[in-house]
Amino acid sequence: MSLYLHDIPLPEAQARFHSALEQAGLWRVLGGESIPLDENALGRVLAESIWAKVSSPNYHASAMDGFAVRAIMTNGALPSVPLSLEIGPDAGYVDTGDPLPEWADAVIPIENVESLDELGEITKEIRKPKAIRIRAAVAPWSHVRPLGEDIVATQLVLPAGHILRAVDLGAVAASGYDEIKVARKPRVAILPTGTELVPIGSELKSGDILEYNSLVLAAQIKSMGGEPTRFPITKDDFDLICQRVQEAAQDHDLILLNAGSSAGAEDFSAKVVEKLGTLLVHGVAVRPGHPVILGVIARSEATKQSQVIAKQEIATRPVDTRNDMIPIIGVPGYPVSSALTIEIFVGPLLAKWLGRKPNELPIETAQLTRKINSPAGDEDYVRVVVGKVGNKLLAAPLARGAGVITSLVQADGLVILPPGVQGIEAGEDVQVHLYKSKAELESTIFCIGSHDLTLDLLSQFLAEQDRRLVSANVGSQGGLVALRRGEAHLAGSHLFDPQTGEFNISYIRQYMPDIPVKVVALTRREQGLLLQRGNPKGIKSLGDLSNSTVRFVNRQRGAGTRVLLDYHLKLMGISSEMIQGYNQEEYTHLGVAAAVASGRADCGLGIAAAAQALDLDFIPLFQERYDLVIPKQFADNELLAPLFGLLSGRALREAVSKLKGYDVSVMGTVILEDE
Amino acid sequence: MSLYLHDIPLPEAQARFHSALEQAGLWRVLGGESIPLDENALGRVLAESIWAKVSSPNYHASAMDGFAVRAIMTNGALPSVPLSLEIGPDAGYVDTGDPLPEWADAVIPIENVESLDELGEITKEIRKPKAIRIRAAVAPWSHVRPLGEDIVATQLVLPAGHILRAVDLGAVAASGYDEIKVARKPRVAILPTGTELVPIGSELKSGDILEYNSLVLAAQIKSMGGEPTRFPITKDDFDLICQRVQEAAQDHDLILLNAGSSAGAEDFSAKVVEKLGTLLVHGVAVRPGHPVILGVIARSEATKQSQVIAKQEIATRPVDTRNDMIPIIGVPGYPVSSALTIEIFVGPLLAKWLGRKPNELPIETAQLTRKINSPAGDEDYVRVVVGKVGNKLLAAPLARGAGVITSLVQADGLVILPPGVQGIEAGEDVQVHLYKSKAELESTIFCIGSHDLTLDLLSQFLAEQDRRLVSANVGSQGGLVALRRGEAHLAGSHLFDPQTGEFNISYIRQYMPDIPVKVVALTRREQGLLLQRGNPKGIKSLGDLSNSTVRFVNRQRGAGTRVLLDYHLKLMGISSEMIQGYNQEEYTHLGVAAAVASGRADCGLGIAAAAQALDLDFIPLFQERYDLVIPKQFADNELLAPLFGLLSGRALREAVSKLKGYDVSVMGTVILEDE
Repeated sequence: MSLYLHDIPLPEAQARFHSALEQAGLWRVLGGESIPLDENALGRVLAESIWAKVSSPNYHASAMDGFAVRAIMTNGALPSVPLSLEIGPDAGYVDTGDPLPEWADAVIPIENVESLDELGEITKEIRKPKAIRIRAAVAPWSHVRPLGEDIVATQLVLPAGHILRAVDLGAVAASGYDEIKVARKPRVAILPTGTELVPIGSELKSGDILEYNSLVLAAQIKSMGGEPTRFPITKDDFDLICQRVQEAAQDHDLILLNAGSSAGAEDFSAKVVEKLGTLLVHGVAVRPGHPVILGVIARSEATKQSQVIAKQEIATRPVDTRNDMIPIIGVPGYPVSSALTIEIFVGPLLAKWLGRKPNELPIETAQLTRKINSPAGDEDYVRVVVGKVGNKLLAAPLARGAGVITSLVQADGLVILPPGVQGIEAGEDVQVHLYKSKAELESTIFCIGSHDLTLDLLSQFLAEQDRRLVSANVGSQGGLVALRRGEAHLAGSHLFDPQTGEFNISYIRQYMPDIPVKVVALTRREQGLLLQRGNPKGIKSLGDLSNSTVRFVNRQRGAGTRVLLDYHLKLMGISSEMIQGYNQEEYTHLGVAAAVASGRADCGLGIAAAAQALDLDFIPLFQERYDLVIPKQFADNELLAPLFGLLSGRALREAVSKLKGYDVSVMGTVILEDE
Repeated sequence: MSLYLHDIPLPEAQARFHSALEQAGLWRVLGGESIPLDENALGRVLAESIWAKVSSPNYHASAMDGFAVRAIMTNGALPSVPLSLEIGPDAGYVDTGDPLPEWADAVIPIENVESLDELGEITKEIRKPKAIRIRAAVAPWSHVRPLGEDIVATQLVLPAGHILRAVDLGAVAASGYDEIKVARKPRVAILPTGTELVPIGSELKSGDILEYNSLVLAAQIKSMGGEPTRFPITKDDFDLICQRVQEAAQDHDLILLNAGSSAGAEDFSAKVVEKLGTLLVHGVAVRPGHPVILGVIARSEATKQSQVIAKQEIATRPVDTRNDMIPIIGVPGYPVSSALTIEIFVGPLLAKWLGRKPNELPIETAQLTRKINSPAGDEDYVRVVVGKVGNKLLAAPLARGAGVITSLVQADGLVILPPGVQGIEAGEDVQVHLYKSKAELESTIFCIGSHDLTLDLLSQFLAEQDRRLVSANVGSQGGLVALRRGEAHLAGSHLFDPQTGEFNISYIRQYMPDIPVKVVALTRREQGLLLQRGNPKGIKSLGDLSNSTVRFVNRQRGAGTRVLLDYHLKLMGISSEMIQGYNQEEYTHLGVAAAVASGRADCGLGIAAAAQALDLDFIPLFQERYDLVIPKQFADNELLAPLFGLLSGRALREAVSKLKGYDVSVMGTVILEDE
């Protein structure tokens, strides 16, 4: 009964895999293939160094349109002492690139001569004169590109292992090649397994899981220089999986078996590897990604008998010979685990097989915006969004779930916590392995606070103007706190103050005193009850929340919507204990709407647009104003200029007004601007 | 007679081109096309934003293998107070990913329960018990991935203009897509023209030029996201070129006409553009690259009549409609000019057409190692090699010639001098637009000084160990000076001191006093006379250099070989004035060999290996030692560790000993090591 995986540390897992591949003669460049030198060679890896076969230019070439001369014959020419050279014995016209005549050793550019006719008069036939007149001497080899100026035959032009770029192809061609030897692309078989899987684009029933891991894996392999083959989905059937693995082993260099790599009732991957070869590792202390399987199997039943390969035999074997063994990786099923497993284990292997350097992400130090906890013993890969606020580079942790592929989509980088670390406090420095360039990070606008659907639209419009809006939903109050800590450029807020009847101002003064701000209205919007279609529980007002058959879903503490709810509950004398689900918290309006749509709750408080998005019933209750709060130090920043442009323009206004329950008449109004 | 180009400033050229395209309705996203969502979508640009069509997960899914329960039923369970739940009404087994039963709201992981049989005893049928015993309560929704955890239907997943990466494809699939709309790839026609051109791989005669620009252009277009078509070579014939341009105009979005863009006798490009449409720009003040042509032509003769397009008509035209007009660029013939023209003019255009951000190179400040001069009025693109020596990031200018494509191959970046700047002194700071990553630059070993063929081999071996050897040939003395200025990690030197009979030591003390060094022998090698095959001039010794019929080619001042020559000439009483070609300088042994091989000179002084490489005759004269001089501060550096490994190993020794005239017995011997 192998219920629990035995998680071993990552370095040990890598070492075991590496040494098994080494033993099987598989830790080496796979081999080369000849391809024509054309634009499809772009990105391929040179399998052999390029030593120039010819020189470039391969003759003394004129570097200008002009007249080839013997330099010695021009001696004595001066502005005041012109000198004539007869065409034929002493001078000859050459175009740029023409070979220099044998007798010549310099070129005078055409613009530096006067062309003369047979009478010694200046002629318009500037390229076919009888003679030329010059007013300056030239040094030998002026305006000549001597043989080998660019490339001398026999020189090293590019080393093996080099990844070919556009200009490289030119240099290789100039060196006399029209065919090159590049590393053969490793062939990687991707086998999705799982009875619950359905192909992408399918209509979904409950329990169906879209099989898109094989798509991501294939694209990862492709971008690493490999050649992926996606197999059709195999259901959870031990024999079928074995059969398909053996099939794939015939003409591939690596097999990725996804998923079934854990220890559940229908997780067959480890057993398949055990049956067909050697299970090296089952479980690696990496998060997300735990149930990784590493193994080596025999390419066919016949060769399985002779799994132990004599080392000497390998050493003398030519590089291109197919090996009897083939590595197999059991890739975890969760999409984030799956993608990271490929980066960690397959990336270095493909680099080795291609004979090139492994990809390395640039590393920058950033300040963590939120505490992260990490299980001791695991190497923890935390996805973060990175942006520059003032002079600080900030890293904001994204959703941690292994099932949240959008966390990888949004990620600007990874923070890798070593096994010993159990967590990092907010404000501490972390090393971020960056996916994005510095320029991209510097065009990032950090928006934090309350969630509103308008931010999605804003993000879309800003993208067109070379700005990336990253929004974190921590509620209105959380947003103001983040601004005080200098962790965002702006915050969305809709905090109602019952004492003043105003929105936001008193909260801003309370949460971020002494920080001059500019507050601009984004929109007015309707808040109300989100209900299941048809309102089966017959809910009519906030009062019904105290009904014991009604399951409510709440927003998190500090959210403007929660402040609003608590205010009205207090007015109505309803205590939170009376409400079933009061402690069920969601962080966004869409989260609340999804909880209601899925039947997890009967109702929630939220904006009309969220109800519209998920086709829910809606009872409007209140109108509120949603503002953007911007510290003055960022308000005049170049970075935010496009935002103000959008707030005063028409396009955003029109797009937002199409959402249900939105009133854009206030958009762009300056509510408050400190000195 | 349009002999001279009228060079206009780059921003003006760009503005003219831009505004003509704007007028013709061509400065916009070209249009989209639907493609299947598979791994070939990698790198494509989204033409439309992806809004989620479904939620992910689209049901409440178990996040673990375990038992679905109602959380409320687990209340009261404690380590000391176990609680049993009967399978069926109160608990049910679920695998990871299974939908939660309607009645359940939490999952207890299998490892946290005891599985019981009908008698209430612990059973091995852990997944099929009659009941389970738990010793802790669970909160509602524990170990459940609620509907929409990753993606909520209707949310923005990716904005239009986004370039698709592997993980993005997964998120798009998870959002319910199996087909996506991406920007259509701009079709770019590449027309090489020139009677002197021959296809790559051809046997070369004098005057033949390998046509590889179209290869580089096609690869550039491809890497920018376009779809290149390479046309066959067209000879310099006005009508033929016109015909081919019109042919290409039919089904392309852009035409690149290469070359004939200057004002020579057979430069037809400008005339072709004038005939078929509007010549906007002929000549841009950019170096290298001057003779750039920008124009817009009619797609066919028929539409040429109506070249002026009403603006309103364009605005209402659907994006996908084919335009009557098509831009054409006359690309200069020199390979460096050609490649830079594409980066400057085509890069931004393709980005606009694809609806994505233009590529921007990261910029770093570096210290210039050598003075550069620049013509006033031109925007000057200087290729540089970049490396880190100590704490200084250094930029070493490469060959400036527009014909030297290897300068682009070797370049780590560009320094762009604005029109007003006539030059920059050595030691000044420059802004480098980097092609390479910081990590790549930090693995760079800067080697400066004398040239030896061994360095090519060394470079090849170091590349295998993740080090890049960049060598600049400034002669032995220049190398020592550069070390003193902290501009290299090591210098190759073979300076003979007649007074001591020793190599290098006295020069090191003279040129870099007070700098502790380690000096390691690389090799001993033969110097001698390089002669044309068969030695037609019957040269026998250094004495023959004073023969007036012998044309000599020299090494530059400060080169060890020149020091050697001068020493022996002095011994023999031969003055430099007596030697024809004494002032003809080359910077490398191969340069000298090429000069002799091409007939530019009859003989030169150099190493045997250079004679062997270019199949020259050779008269051995002297043996000398070639050392590597390494300041102590770098000698123990991690960066140089692989170098010392190679010097003491066998591989390099064996490779060098195959070169003619090399004696590797001294390799790795420490000649001097300061405290």
